[in-house]
Amino acid sequence: MVVHERDPYNAEPPRSALAGGPLTPADTFYSRNHGPVPEIDAASWRLALDGLVQRPLLLSLAELRERFQEHTVAATLQCAGNQRSGFTEIRDIPGEDPWGPCATSTARWTGVRLLDLLTAAGLKAGAEHIAFAAPDVSQLADPPQPYGASVPVAKAVHGEVLLAWTMNGAPLPRVHGAPLRVVVPGWIGARSVKWLQRITAQRKPSGNYFQATAYRLLPADADPAAVGAHEGISLGPVALNCAILRPDGTVRRIAGPAEIVGYAFAGDDRTVARVDVSVNGGRTWSQAGVDAPIGPWTWQYWRTTLDLPEGEVEITARAWDSTGAAQPESAAHLWNPKGYANNSWARLRLNCSR
Amino acid sequence: MVVHERDPYNAEPPRSALAGGPLTPADTFYSRNHGPVPEIDAASWRLALDGLVQRPLLLSLAELRERFQEHTVAATLQCAGNQRSGFTEIRDIPGEDPWGPCATSTARWTGVRLLDLLTAAGLKAGAEHIAFAAPDVSQLADPPQPYGASVPVAKAVHGEVLLAWTMNGAPLPRVHGAPLRVVVPGWIGARSVKWLQRITAQRKPSGNYFQATAYRLLPADADPAAVGAHEGISLGPVALNCAILRPDGTVRRIAGPAEIVGYAFAGDDRTVARVDVSVNGGRTWSQAGVDAPIGPWTWQYWRTTLDLPEGEVEITARAWDSTGAAQPESAAHLWNPKGYANNSWARLRLNCSR
Repeated sequence: MVVHERDPYNAEPPRSALAGGPLTPADTFYSRNHGPVPEIDAASWRLALDGLVQRPLLLSLAELRERFQEHTVAATLQCAGNQRSGFTEIRDIPGEDPWGPCATSTARWTGVRLLDLLTAAGLKAGAEHIAFAAPDVSQLADPPQPYGASVPVAKAVHGEVLLAWTMNGAPLPRVHGAPLRVVVPGWIGARSVKWLQRITAQRKPSGNYFQATAYRLLPADADPAAVGAHEGISLGPVALNCAILRPDGTVRRIAGPAEIVGYAFAGDDRTVARVDVSVNGGRTWSQAGVDAPIGPWTWQYWRTTLDLPEGEVEITARAWDSTGAAQPESAAHLWNPKGYANNSWARLRLNCSR
Repeated sequence: MVVHERDPYNAEPPRSALAGGPLTPADTFYSRNHGPVPEIDAASWRLALDGLVQRPLLLSLAELRERFQEHTVAATLQCAGNQRSGFTEIRDIPGEDPWGPCATSTARWTGVRLLDLLTAAGLKAGAEHIAFAAPDVSQLADPPQPYGASVPVAKAVHGEVLLAWTMNGAPLPRVHGAPLRVVVPGWIGARSVKWLQRITAQRKPSGNYFQATAYRLLPADADPAAVGAHEGISLGPVALNCAILRPDGTVRRIAGPAEIVGYAFAGDDRTVARVDVSVNGGRTWSQAGVDAPIGPWTWQYWRTTLDLPEGEVEITARAWDSTGAAQPESAAHLWNPKGYANNSWARLRLNCSR
C-alpha cells in the first residue's frame, strides 16, 4: 500500500495491485480515515434508528440479521480526493493527502437494505435526509467531532444502499468499518460511513463538519480557512473518471506494442459508454475494449494494445458516459482549494527505450 | 427565428429571444423536424398502445383526457445537435444543420403520464423499452421511414414523462406535435416524439433509423456513411451544457460593465450547481448568480456583470453539476462526425470599442 498517513491511517494500493481485476481484496482496498480506527465490541454494539420516524429502532447485529433480508451488492467506492496528485502538481494543497488514482476500490458487500430499516421504522413527513453517525473522533474537524454524513431520502431508499457486515464474503475488517458500515454505491466514499452507530431521519443534510464544511468543491480563488459551512458544491454522486493501471510507470519500458489496462467509473447511476486512449497527447485516439461491469454500481475495466514510441511518451485516457459526456481534459481548469473531484483525462508519463 | 431548413422545417430562436426568461413562447420554441409536418384530424385520430401488454389500448383524445389524470410539467427540450456550429467551425459536418446554442427551449406541458397508460395496459414480462411511432415520413432516413424512437421502461415510468396536448396553457401547435406528443424531460428532444400515434412495449430499443443509426455519437475518425446500425453511443439523457444569451454578439459593444445572461442545463436528473464566467479565456473566473429552476426538469438562467475590456474579447462560460463535474473546455476534443453533444464551454466573441 502507498501510505499517505499513519494516524489517521490513509493508504491506497499501487496501480499494479488494482490492475489484476475488478474485485479488490480487503487488504488491498483503499483506506480513508479521519480519526483513529475504533475498536468496537460487536456483542454490546447496538444500532439506533431515530429522528423523524414512527417507530425508533435499537438493534443488535443478531437482531438486524434476523429481522431483515440479506442482500449482496458489488460496489466501487471512491474517495472524493482520488487523483488529487494531479492538482498538487499544479499548486500545493496544504493539509490534504496527495492521493493518486487508486483511492478507489471495488468489493461485494453483504448486509441489509437501508430501505428495509426505514420501512420498518416508518418515515414521518418532513424526513428528507438520512444521517449516519459513527464514534471515530476526528481532530481534523473544526471543532473536533465524531465522523458523520447523510444522504437524501431519494438515494437512501434505493435498493443498492446497504448496511453491510460482510466484504467479499468475509467478515468486514475493523479498518473497513466493523461491525457495520454504510455502503452508498455511486456516491463519494465519504457518505459510506464506517462503524455505524446511529441513523437519524431529519429535515436537513448532515451538519457534521465533514459534510457541511469538508467534501465541498470551492471556487479556485476561495480560501478554505475563511469560507463558512455550506459553501461550495456539496459532493455526492461521483463524476465520470478513469485511470491507467498498467503500465504503472515504475518500470522502464521498451518501445513497441504494450497492453494498456485501466478502470473507468461513471459514478452516480450512469455507465461507461466508451474509453479512448492516446499516445500522442490526445491528437488521435484509439478506442479501448471496455469490460462489462460486474454489477450496475461498479467501475469497468478497459484494455487496449498500442505501440509505444521511443523516448518520452504520455499515455492519455478518457471515458465517455451514457449521456455522451466526456471527461474534461485539463486538471488546471478543475483545480480547487481542497483538491476534490479531479476527473480530468488520465495521464501517465513513460520513457521508452529502444 | 434562424431558419436552417424550410423543408423539413428546422429553426432556432435568436439568442435575444431566449434571453427574456426561462419559459419560451410556442412561436419562439426551436423546431426540429425530419420530414413534412403532418396534418392530423384530431377527431378521427386514435392512440394505440400495444406490444408486450396485457390489455392493448385504443383511445381517442377525449377518452385519453377522460380516463387519465391531467399533469403539468415544466421541461426543457434540447436537440442533440445543439451547438453543432461549434463543431462545424473546426471541421465541416455534411448533411447536418449548423445549429447554434438555441436548439433548446422550455415550456410547461400538460397531458397525462405515460406511466398511467402503461399501468392501465399492464406491462408483460420482457417489456424493457417503450417505443413511439409517428406518421411523419422522413426522406433523410435510410430507407425513408416514419419517425420513431423509444425510451427504456426505467425512464418511461417516471412521473415526469408525459403525453401532452397543451403547451404553455394553450393547445399544442401543429408544428410542435398536435394532437399529442411525448415529452421526455432531461433527454434529447429526439425521444420526445411528436404526432404520436402508437406506443409499443417491446424487448429492445427502437430499431427506427433515427435511434438505431442517427442520434449516435461516433468516434472522430468514423465514417457515418459506412458504420452500421447500433454503432456509437446512443444519445439519451442530455449532458451538462450552457450558453451565453446576452450579449448576443450582434451589436457592437462599448467596453465597461456589461450584464451577461445565459442558460445552463444539467440534463438527465441533475441540477446546475455553479456557473463560472470569464473574460480572459478561462484564466480567471467569476461566479454568476444562478436562478432557481422553474421546475426540476428545466434549465436555469444565470447572470453576472463583468467589465468588458476594449478590443477583442471572448466571453467564456461553463457550468458545474451536482456531482462536481464541469463541462469540458474544447469542442475540438469532442468533435464527432454527426456533430452531437457539443457541451464544451460556451464562447462568445465580441469587439468592444472605447
